[in-house]
Amino acid sequence: MMYIGIDLGGINTAAGLVSDSGEISSKRSVPTPRTPEAVADAIAEHVKNLLELSDGSVKYIGVGSPGAIDPGNGVIEYWANLGFNNVPLGRMIEERTGLPVIIENDAACAALGEFRSGAGKGVSSLLAVTLGTGVGGGAVLDGKLYTGINHASLEIGHLVIEHNGRPCTCGRKGCFEAYCSATALIKEARKAMDLCPDSLLWKLAGSKENVNGKVVFDAFEAEDPAAVKVVEEYISYLGCGITNLVNVFQPDVVCIGGGVSGAGETLLSPVRRILDSEDYARGCKKRARLVQAELGNDAGIIGAALLGVN
Amino acid sequence: MMYIGIDLGGINTAAGLVSDSGEISSKRSVPTPRTPEAVADAIAEHVKNLLELSDGSVKYIGVGSPGAIDPGNGVIEYWANLGFNNVPLGRMIEERTGLPVIIENDAACAALGEFRSGAGKGVSSLLAVTLGTGVGGGAVLDGKLYTGINHASLEIGHLVIEHNGRPCTCGRKGCFEAYCSATALIKEARKAMDLCPDSLLWKLAGSKENVNGKVVFDAFEAEDPAAVKVVEEYISYLGCGITNLVNVFQPDVVCIGGGVSGAGETLLSPVRRILDSEDYARGCKKRARLVQAELGNDAGIIGAALLGVN
Repeated sequence: MMYIGIDLGGINTAAGLVSDSGEISSKRSVPTPRTPEAVADAIAEHVKNLLELSDGSVKYIGVGSPGAIDPGNGVIEYWANLGFNNVPLGRMIEERTGLPVIIENDAACAALGEFRSGAGKGVSSLLAVTLGTGVGGGAVLDGKLYTGINHASLEIGHLVIEHNGRPCTCGRKGCFEAYCSATALIKEARKAMDLCPDSLLWKLAGSKENVNGKVVFDAFEAEDPAAVKVVEEYISYLGCGITNLVNVFQPDVVCIGGGVSGAGETLLSPVRRILDSEDYARGCKKRARLVQAELGNDAGIIGAALLGVN
Repeated sequence: MMYIGIDLGGINTAAGLVSDSGEISSKRSVPTPRTPEAVADAIAEHVKNLLELSDGSVKYIGVGSPGAIDPGNGVIEYWANLGFNNVPLGRMIEERTGLPVIIENDAACAALGEFRSGAGKGVSSLLAVTLGTGVGGGAVLDGKLYTGINHASLEIGHLVIEHNGRPCTCGRKGCFEAYCSATALIKEARKAMDLCPDSLLWKLAGSKENVNGKVVFDAFEAEDPAAVKVVEEYISYLGCGITNLVNVFQPDVVCIGGGVSGAGETLLSPVRRILDSEDYARGCKKRARLVQAELGNDAGIIGAALLGVN
C-alpha cells in the first residue's frame, strides 16, 4: 500500500509518495499559492503527478497544515499566514482527486513522521520540538498521535518559562518561543552586535540583516565573547524548556528539529547536561533521550502520509 | 465485580471497596506504619476487613503510592518520605492476601479516579492538578492513563515558570510548585504578616504558625490588603501554570484538587479569566474546562481500585 503526504507550508507545498514503512519514493515541491482554490489545485496537481509514479495502490491523501484544523470535517478553521477561515480543504481536494483526504496539524504530522521512521523508530513515546521561526511541538504518546480535544495541543512555544518576561506574539509574556525560536536567537545576536562593534558576528554575517542561527553558532564555536553570551543564555532557556517538557511527558525520546537544531551536539550536549541535573526522574532507570531530529523537512510529508496507518 | 483500592500516603493509608462504576461501598483508614513489612501488614489487614464486607467478587488490589514506582515489577523504587528503596510491595501484599496487586503512582491514581467517576466522567481527556504540600498532577489522555516511560510523568509541580526564580526542593529554580503549592501560599502569607502587623491575617490565624490556605482566602474575601496582595500574586502564577498545561494538553477538563482548591470559585474564576485571555486555543470551538475536583481524598482510592479496568 502507498500513501500521498502533503506538507502545506506558508512558503512551499511539498508532496511525497510514501510507503507503509515511511519511505519516500518520490517528492515534489511548489510555491504555495495564496487562495484556497489555488492551493487545492496545486495539491491536486501534485497528486496527479505522484499517482502516475505509483503502483496504483494509493489509499488516501494525508495533509499537514498550519493553523487551527478540524480533521473531523477536513476544514482549516483558521490560518493567519494565508488568511484562511473555515476552508473545507479536505472536500476540495477530494473533489479534485477522487481520493479520501485526512487533514491534521503540521507539527503533529512532523512528530508522527519522526516517530514512524525517524528519531522515534521503535520507541513508544516521542516528543518533537521544532526550533524555527517559532517553537513548535508534537507528541506521539504510547504509540498514538496526541492532539487534544481541538487539535491545538502541544503549543509548547507558548509555555511561559519567565513569568511576565519577554512579550510573545501570542499575547502572553515570557513564552518559551520568545527565548528559544531562531527568531529570538537572531534578535539577541543583533542586540549583541550593537553592543560589541568588534564582535566576530559582524565579520561572519557581514551585516546585522544577514545574521542567522548558523552564524551565531559559528561565532560561539570560535569563542567570540558576544556570541558566547548570546548562546549561553539561549541554551539556559532551552534547557529550562526541554526539562519542563520531560518532567511533563517522560517520553522515550525528545527530538529537536528546525533550523537551530543544525548546530547539532554543540547545542544538544549542554542542554543534555541541564536535563541530566534537573530532570525530576534523573534517578530513574529509564530516562528520556534527547536527540536531533532525523528527517528534516521530510518529517511532515511522511507523518501526513501515515496519518491513517495504525 | 469489585476491587480494593489502597491510597498509601505519608500519614495515612486508606482503603476502599470499589465497584466497576467507581463507587466506594466501604472505606477504612489507619496511620501509615514506618517499615515496608508493617506497611504490607497494614494493607493486608485492610484487605482482610474489606473482603469480609465484599460479595466475594474482588478481582485484585490496586495501590497508589508516592515516589518512583515500577508497576511492571510491583516495586516502590524510591520513596523519600519513608526512606523506601526498592521495596517489592506488590509481592509482599500478594503473599499476605493471595490476591493480584497492581501498583501505580498516587497522583496518576487520583487522576484516573476523577476521570472515571468525578470531574472527568464522560469526557475523553482529563488533567488533574493538586495544590497541596506540593503541586502534583496526573493525566488521562484519549481515555488512557498516561504515565510516561518511567511512571514519573506529569511532575507538573516541577515546571519552571520563572527562570532562575524561587528555589525548589527538586533543585531547580522557579518551579510552579515554589509559587502555587499550599506551602508556598502560606510562606508568602507569613512574610506579609511580618510586613503588616495590622493585617487581618493575624486576627484570623492567631499566630503565624496557624496560617493555612483557608485563613488566607478568608482574609482575601474580607479585602485585607496584605491577603489581597498575596492571593493576587498566587493567582497570577497559578493562571500562568494552568495556561501552560492547557497549551500542552488541550484536555476536555482540568480539575483542581488539594487543600487550596477548597477556595472554590474565589480561586477558579480569576484563574479562568487568565486562561480565557491567554489560552492559545481561545478562538477554538472546543476549549478545556477548568473545574474543581469532585472526589477529594477518595480519588486516589477509586483510581487505584480501577487501575486494571479498561
